[in-house]
Amino acid sequence: MTQDLHGFYLEDLSVGQSASFAKTVTESDIILFAGVSGDFNPVHINKDFAATTVFKDRIAHGMLSAAFISTVLGMKLPGPGCIYMSQNLKFKAPVKIGDTVTATVTVTEIIREKKRVALSTVCTVAGKPVLEGDALMMVDSRG
Amino acid sequence: MTQDLHGFYLEDLSVGQSASFAKTVTESDIILFAGVSGDFNPVHINKDFAATTVFKDRIAHGMLSAAFISTVLGMKLPGPGCIYMSQNLKFKAPVKIGDTVTATVTVTEIIREKKRVALSTVCTVAGKPVLEGDALMMVDSRG
Amino acid sequence: MTQDLHGFYLEDLSVGQSASFAKTVTESDIILFAGVSGDFNPVHINKDFAATTVFKDRIAHGMLSAAFISTVLGMKLPGPGCIYMSQNLKFKAPVKIGDTVTATVTVTEIIREKKRVALSTVCTVAGKPVLEGDALMMVDSRG
Amino acid sequence: MTQDLHGFYLEDLSVGQSASFAKTVTESDIILFAGVSGDFNPVHINKDFAATTVFKDRIAHGMLSAAFISTVLGMKLPGPGCIYMSQNLKFKAPVKIGDTVTATVTVTEIIREKKRVALSTVCTVAGKPVLEGDALMMVDSRG
Repeated sequence: MTQDLHGFYLEDLSVGQSASFAKTVTESDIILFAGVSGDFNPVHINKDFAATTVFKDRIAHGMLSAAFISTVLGMKLPGPGCIYMSQNLKFKAPVKIGDTVTATVTVTEIIREKKRVALSTVCTVAGKPVLEGDALMMVDSRG
Repeated sequence: MTQDLHGFYLEDLSVGQSASFAKTVTESDIILFAGVSGDFNPVHINKDFAATTVFKDRIAHGMLSAAFISTVLGMKLPGPGCIYMSQNLKFKAPVKIGDTVTATVTVTEIIREKKRVALSTVCTVAGKPVLEGDALMMVDSRG
Repeated sequence: MTQDLHGFYLEDLSVGQSASFAKTVTESDIILFAGVSGDFNPVHINKDFAATTVFKDRIAHGMLSAAFISTVLGMKLPGPGCIYMSQNLKFKAPVKIGDTVTATVTVTEIIREKKRVALSTVCTVAGKPVLEGDALMMVDSRG
Repeated sequence: MTQDLHGFYLEDLSVGQSASFAKTVTESDIILFAGVSGDFNPVHINKDFAATTVFKDRIAHGMLSAAFISTVLGMKLPGPGCIYMSQNLKFKAPVKIGDTVTATVTVTEIIREKKRVALSTVCTVAGKPVLEGDALMMVDSRG
């Protein structure tokens, strides 16, 4: 049964293939993310402090958006069985309470001999990038 | 009063300055991280599936360790008020339930004219790196 | 319907009256309490650090046991409708993962003209006190 | 490495020294605190019941504010390594959803021969006390 859970194999993938995951970020998500990570930076959990910053209000943890990328990679493309090698992250804009973040990954290169797959990774809010980067995954071969 | 909460200013920082955060990763952390991120990759939350993988057991989300880096950056060095520009992550080894992860950041370069600070970022378990990379932060100047 | 939810009135109470609440403290409780309170003191969440302390292992937050006292006061005796005036807490011994904490409150004095009720409050593990103190509540009168 | 995590030693402390922690209390915090403590007093989790009380709306658990005091004591002043001896709590005003609670502790007395440190402890919302009291900590000596 567990075999059914396996994601794409190297031979199943092609450049340009894409997948997404989207979630509305709520105040609860920020509270929970702070709780599990220990990141109580006041810009995330202190409304009064956040009001004094350039953001004017509490913002979500950047690594929450990064986690959404990991969600797509690990669950959809390439999916279960792949191994996360590396990830680059460029934070472009803040995510606020109520924003719906869409994480999209797209295959950019398949390196068959090394069983590696490169993907571009982007998170957007209302079509505008908030997080950009690229990922490198190790993917099982059927062979 | 909120001014008390501000972290280091550009003028306070020097190359080689370092700070850490450490947490024992528990099964609860993995469950909670899955819940908030939506990353239900079976390698994290399915003991039977995980047993069939190279890891032999459930592993923590890589982005949980990445979040610990963000915790040190945002709360200690440079601390509140800084802005996260970018982060590179190289996943070197899995984190298992019961492992104590120590995230350490060290200032490697201060680019005064752009108000940027570069830091090396590493997570270790029992002294062995599980996650390596570097971060770029924008930091307020007193001037 | 909400009237049904009201706890004891001043006239219903007598000295010596007692009530309890008990819960086994798990690793998850400590993780969640850290998450909501922001108390990531390493003695609670870092197994390696805790091993170097007099406690030899991670201990629960003292305020978690204190919260169990509040649970009895607010839910059972005097119960809903009462107002918490003050609480003294003496921490007598650590609570470890797997310990079952029993919080017991006992009415010690009823000050009718001020609508105040004093209670002794104790938390025990295997019959041994881990937290002692007393509480003062304001309680509604039927009159 | 764990030595780095140790807080202030007795010799490092002086009367008047102070530290703070602040968090905006959200509906999620109340739900999570109820879940971990078992304190489902309707004044905290039942909007309809709370509307019939003098508070007119759901209020946070008093012990959540108390926990913020413990956060400052255990993480900042005196910090990791200290042992909580006792705490007095006087609840002065309710905390509502959206209030930012600032917990501040200030050293009031250092009892060197007993390795004890007394601190005043206060939680405020918009500068107004909601919780007052004092704490007694046992603190390691360098000697």
